Amino acid sequence: MANISLSTPKGFRIAAVKAGIKASGNLDLGLIVSDVKCTAAGVFTKNKIASPTIAVCREHLSNGKVQAIFVNAGNANACTGKRGLNDVYSISKMVASGLDIDPKDVLVTSTGIIGEFMPMDKVKQGIENATGGLSYAARNSKDFSKAIMTTDLVPKTASGQIKMGTKSVTIAATAKGSGMIAPNMATMLGFITTDVSIKMSLLYKALKEVAAITFNKVSVDNHTSTNDALLVMASHMAGNTMIDKETSVNYKKFRNALHEVCDLLARQMAADGEGATCAVTVRVKGAENTKQATIAVRAIVDSPLVRTAFNGADPNWGRIISAIGYCGVKFIPEKLSCQIAGEYVYRGGRPAGFSAAKLSKKMRAKHWTVEVGLGIGKSQDFCYTCDLSKGYVSINADYHT
Amino acid sequence: MANISLSTPKGFRIAAVKAGIKASGNLDLGLIVSDVKCTAAGVFTKNKIASPTIAVCREHLSNGKVQAIFVNAGNANACTGKRGLNDVYSISKMVASGLDIDPKDVLVTSTGIIGEFMPMDKVKQGIENATGGLSYAARNSKDFSKAIMTTDLVPKTASGQIKMGTKSVTIAATAKGSGMIAPNMATMLGFITTDVSIKMSLLYKALKEVAAITFNKVSVDNHTSTNDALLVMASHMAGNTMIDKETSVNYKKFRNALHEVCDLLARQMAADGEGATCAVTVRVKGAENTKQATIAVRAIVDSPLVRTAFNGADPNWGRIISAIGYCGVKFIPEKLSCQIAGEYVYRGGRPAGFSAAKLSKKMRAKHWTVEVGLGIGKSQDFCYTCDLSKGYVSINADYHT
Repeated sequence: MANISLSTPKGFRIAAVKAGIKASGNLDLGLIVSDVKCTAAGVFTKNKIASPTIAVCREHLSNGKVQAIFVNAGNANACTGKRGLNDVYSISKMVASGLDIDPKDVLVTSTGIIGEFMPMDKVKQGIENATGGLSYAARNSKDFSKAIMTTDLVPKTASGQIKMGTKSVTIAATAKGSGMIAPNMATMLGFITTDVSIKMSLLYKALKEVAAITFNKVSVDNHTSTNDALLVMASHMAGNTMIDKETSVNYKKFRNALHEVCDLLARQMAADGEGATCAVTVRVKGAENTKQATIAVRAIVDSPLVRTAFNGADPNWGRIISAIGYCGVKFIPEKLSCQIAGEYVYRGGRPAGFSAAKLSKKMRAKHWTVEVGLGIGKSQDFCYTCDLSKGYVSINADYHT
Repeated sequence: MANISLSTPKGFRIAAVKAGIKASGNLDLGLIVSDVKCTAAGVFTKNKIASPTIAVCREHLSNGKVQAIFVNAGNANACTGKRGLNDVYSISKMVASGLDIDPKDVLVTSTGIIGEFMPMDKVKQGIENATGGLSYAARNSKDFSKAIMTTDLVPKTASGQIKMGTKSVTIAATAKGSGMIAPNMATMLGFITTDVSIKMSLLYKALKEVAAITFNKVSVDNHTSTNDALLVMASHMAGNTMIDKETSVNYKKFRNALHEVCDLLARQMAADGEGATCAVTVRVKGAENTKQATIAVRAIVDSPLVRTAFNGADPNWGRIISAIGYCGVKFIPEKLSCQIAGEYVYRGGRPAGFSAAKLSKKMRAKHWTVEVGLGIGKSQDFCYTCDLSKGYVSINADYHT
């Protein structure tokens, strides 16, 4: 579905401009504008030190109606105190005035450096240029995906289409973020447009549930950002009968399609993790309960030793198994197992015979999996991560505040 | 106290030999032997996947009496099942037979690669050579400190002397480990000899308390090893009146001296963390309670983003402050503060004015501190850590199992 863009769902116009916020001079400011008031929902960072954009997003989402989203990259407007908060309100007013809508129907999101004030003159000029350049053209959506990038190497998009009776519903999405992730170049932002007609509470429910098993399963460096936001706008223009029951077939269809779209984006984020040379899905099965499975998964992906072994294409099960040993979860030692790229390296509580050279070759693929079996229950969890490379250190050590 | 070695406390002979366990052919097997049965104590890794050496150490320490310690580097004898356990018993028997003592009075420790069986022929020959080479000479202690090294770049030693009445009590110690740490090249081992006369329960109490505030405060990569062990042997030969009361002046003197010795070693370990270019002491003050202070300290030192900023000598307070934001501890936003190398970078809940260039220069020193104030209570905690460098990635990605 490569030819679906953010403006394919009915009713959305997009703009992206160079406002001079990024030092590089690249595209750095974008708008998503709907022809009508949309039903909207968002999920946000749990970091207590959050950008004021987060508070204002929550405030403006309280009635579930939104007509425009502003985004800039290059400056996160975080740790900027009262002035930062006032700047967010100013931005929503500028956007609203350019579009002749209510400032309360504008969401403002930012990503970039923490602790610096927004260059409001540049932002103002950028908004004027963007409102003037809004278009249904796919090209603008492409530019939008580029405008939100910070340390990302590639733009990230995904989309889906579903039939509801005779009507076709489209979901289009874009995201940025090189992990879960880097608060300096803060960090994960996701934008979803859809023309589905759906009740606000169900849109939020679907978004929240899907975020939990997609974006919240991405870990590059176990550092939660100050600016994470995932937003969805539904224009209701597809013409489907409004989805208003959780039990309806169309709700399930929509939720599944949304899941697929977000999953595709989440995988792209892990693969584009800072310095990543490979994307790795880490799965823990056979846990006593989901919480224990989550703890075990996090112990594996949070270990720099494990992730440097990924980087070296080294089937070093000792680092994985010892992480299980210290993370505190229950397991049956004689049933403990570990597979790397589909091959057992540890089984029945002991090293399994395998060719390290052959397996190392498999680990040089772009994507592969680690699966650990705890042998004590039936619960499981997973995480999308990547290797820890010298490139990661370069990006984060050589870059200067 | 540079001329104090492991054999300075009365009654200890040391040996170190090349047994061919390390691929490099360097010194890799050592013995500490006392002329008399010692009072002994140990603290060990909490990893559930522990080397069988740990279980046998605990077993042989159960009566609090030990006469010899064996150590080898190059092979951790971990994840080696029943055969690994039998090898530990065999080693204690070989050592005991060479010294004509009880195998139950021998402690066996190992460090090195996980998941490979001990090369018992080489070990046997090494033990024979070592028992033949035991000596009170300082040179042997120096060799012992080298023999236990794996990824360590420098040998680590510390010592102290205290007067108890007319008698002089000596404490000497050596340790290895490039962090808290690397289970592949598993990992932290510490050996302490002393001629103090002390009750077993008090020796254990002092060791446990001191380990908690020294070695357990070192973090290089939040990955707990399978083989960590810290052992102390007390020969009672200093001639002091036996320390048998926690309230006695001499117990306090001994505990303080032990603390100083272990603190010196712990700092050396952080400074020699894998790939480290600087040692950083991270301290969190003003926490509601110690547990909260510990959580905050760990969030900072476990963040690869923070530790790559250390590597880049980058006073990036955003990464530190956002770690406080997501770790879940209580703080008063308007009182939150952060000092790097003695200078405020964040104060009263907002960025403090500072010269990034000047501060960056200070961060290029061998050792400096980060201090965060939560502004809510009076508790504090700290951790010794180091920066995360390309060198760390090299050591752990390029090394192959």
